[in-house]
Amino acid sequence: MKQIQGGVTAPKGFEAAGTAANIKYKDRMDMALIYSCAPCRVAGTFTTNVVKAAPVLWDQEIVKNSPCAQAVIVNAGIANACTGKQGMDYCREEARTASGLLDISEDAVLVGSTGVIGMQLPMERINEGIRKLVAAKDSSVEAGTTASRAIMTTDTVNKEIAVTIELDGKTVTIGGMSKGSGMIHPNMCTMLAYITTDAAISRELLQEALSSSIVDTYNMISVDGDTSTNDTCLILANALAGNAEITEKGAAYDSFCEALDYVNTCLARKMAGDGEGATALFETTVVNAATKQEARILAKSVIGSSLCKAAIYGHDANFGRFLCALGYSGVKFDPEKVELFFESRAGKMLIYKDGAATDYSEEQATKILSEPEVTVLVDMKMGTETATAWGCDLTYDYVKINADYRS
Amino acid sequence: MKQIQGGVTAPKGFEAAGTAANIKYKDRMDMALIYSCAPCRVAGTFTTNVVKAAPVLWDQEIVKNSPCAQAVIVNAGIANACTGKQGMDYCREEARTASGLLDISEDAVLVGSTGVIGMQLPMERINEGIRKLVAAKDSSVEAGTTASRAIMTTDTVNKEIAVTIELDGKTVTIGGMSKGSGMIHPNMCTMLAYITTDAAISRELLQEALSSSIVDTYNMISVDGDTSTNDTCLILANALAGNAEITEKGAAYDSFCEALDYVNTCLARKMAGDGEGATALFETTVVNAATKQEARILAKSVIGSSLCKAAIYGHDANFGRFLCALGYSGVKFDPEKVELFFESRAGKMLIYKDGAATDYSEEQATKILSEPEVTVLVDMKMGTETATAWGCDLTYDYVKINADYRS
Repeated sequence: MKQIQGGVTAPKGFEAAGTAANIKYKDRMDMALIYSCAPCRVAGTFTTNVVKAAPVLWDQEIVKNSPCAQAVIVNAGIANACTGKQGMDYCREEARTASGLLDISEDAVLVGSTGVIGMQLPMERINEGIRKLVAAKDSSVEAGTTASRAIMTTDTVNKEIAVTIELDGKTVTIGGMSKGSGMIHPNMCTMLAYITTDAAISRELLQEALSSSIVDTYNMISVDGDTSTNDTCLILANALAGNAEITEKGAAYDSFCEALDYVNTCLARKMAGDGEGATALFETTVVNAATKQEARILAKSVIGSSLCKAAIYGHDANFGRFLCALGYSGVKFDPEKVELFFESRAGKMLIYKDGAATDYSEEQATKILSEPEVTVLVDMKMGTETATAWGCDLTYDYVKINADYRS
Repeated sequence: MKQIQGGVTAPKGFEAAGTAANIKYKDRMDMALIYSCAPCRVAGTFTTNVVKAAPVLWDQEIVKNSPCAQAVIVNAGIANACTGKQGMDYCREEARTASGLLDISEDAVLVGSTGVIGMQLPMERINEGIRKLVAAKDSSVEAGTTASRAIMTTDTVNKEIAVTIELDGKTVTIGGMSKGSGMIHPNMCTMLAYITTDAAISRELLQEALSSSIVDTYNMISVDGDTSTNDTCLILANALAGNAEITEKGAAYDSFCEALDYVNTCLARKMAGDGEGATALFETTVVNAATKQEARILAKSVIGSSLCKAAIYGHDANFGRFLCALGYSGVKFDPEKVELFFESRAGKMLIYKDGAATDYSEEQATKILSEPEVTVLVDMKMGTETATAWGCDLTYDYVKINADYRS
């Protein structure tokens, strides 16, 4: 596997574009298009929130029943959630506009929205945006980057990645882009993540690869514990790489999954590190847990704790908060056996062992915790299972962004 | 039932004191004593966190096995949690010091601690503090208030209450004090709450009344989602009121429970409203839910959401966040049927109905949300069950307090 430049336009046959449609923000891009010149198999995972945004319901239907997909239209600024029947009608109108301009069927068009909940989309501007996107689309690296920038809301950096693998002597590429900064606590899926690939792979295995990958990638991040109404992760596969179609599990499938996991892990980490107001990526790795599921629960409990997040922001080696968060996770364990380490580029330090603090240096601990990527490593001494979760610190700016978000 | 002045010293036979023992804070009180001149039946509920502080383990043993209790020693500043065997030895030493000075048995002394996790108690200063507390104790209203002030950490106001009821022509009094501001997400119990009563009641019914009361009081509040290692709620009953001992359920038991619920609700609300950095008490009432448990889960999901809390701070009628938090609570419902209201002293407003926003006035919504006590009222239209949960807004000061807490 090799990481290459670019994002969603890296695989063969994919084009993209971004444009400013003036939906809610002024003077910035807020709509994106991903288009494949060949029909794609599509798989998706979506929010488990009972309150699902209209585009989530639309895309679920396409993923379930449409024979193929070829385009994704995404807008930022308004989430098209809690918008009733009108919101669904607007999804259909978006698809109709795009299908006419791209000469593809209406049920080949996926839609996505992110932004404020409860407002209706300004459809005149949306339709005009789609016209501009279709006119502007191309297959360059820059077009992919432009699309990834156009779906940002409170994100401060765009998020994209591309990798290649070799299958049957053919180069297969996977590209991806995502956005997500607040209301991030994906359950079954992430905020918005769009993955493209030119791999030939059956619809069933494409869905299985995606569903399996999200468990230890997007589902292991949290910014604020709020599971969104709009979480969507889609993967489109257009088969243009020319590999023998992957129709059963084996070496080719494993290789594809490994590359997909890498792409999703990278995008998930980027979302956590760019959490609203964040100054640091806050990683927690739990090793030697009794079961994989317990390892996941423990790691997520730590990165989700407001007090642990505030301690990371303050570069404060307040290790008791990390123990406390492990303790209320729901997993049973013996606190006397656990070992806790702080780790970053500045070093690694054992801070808690045998039920009490080690004789550690506060100065060295503060140094380790002052890096932009900080890891809390927890050794449960109960088994052999491992999991990693990613979050960010809790800062003044998180409060500022979210007290003012609509205004 | 009548609310009266005072707190833990209001019931007959109870004394209290507070003192400055210089445990961690400078120039402020940090130790409290509650003492009953007659032996008490005692009941307690404690944190469900797997990582339990030493005083929690000590008190659990007393509540389970000791024939009676007569004193509670509490310190603020250091939590005596994650302190290993030494921490337990220090609990025993505290009890021994107090038992010698008060001429009661060692297993009649309960202990409590709150503050930083992971540090050992300075036992010389603790023992000196106990000596000063025993010398200073008295039964005045002021002594109860002093004790309630002495257990504060990041609390900004002391929390106490007392009520009386009539049983068999006798006046029975219940008093209480509590502290709690951060690491507040009680599960089975609260931070530190101490309830005193002169009621005569069997040990079994005292425990049952307490265990039942906490479910809809302390367990329905959250400041930051972090369930503490030290949560403790104790009730001491010394039978000096002279009522016929309550030994079975009936009118007297119900009357006692009603008064106890009132005391616990009042103390719980005060803790939520005084959450670290809070500017507002944020109440959520769910009505017409299918089951009581679903009503509780829905209400707690809303008051626990960082984004809802930030919206309250910003006085922002961002109702989609409240719908979103209901949606990820785990309870199944039809979002099209739910009605959502904002309510405070400034008025009441229907903001969401039939799956979309009503035609509401932003100006009026902001006015309602700018009060110091704000209620989100959710009508599920599924049944007849109701629950209320209490939290607070998320502010810059919460982050400030918790990024700096140890320093």
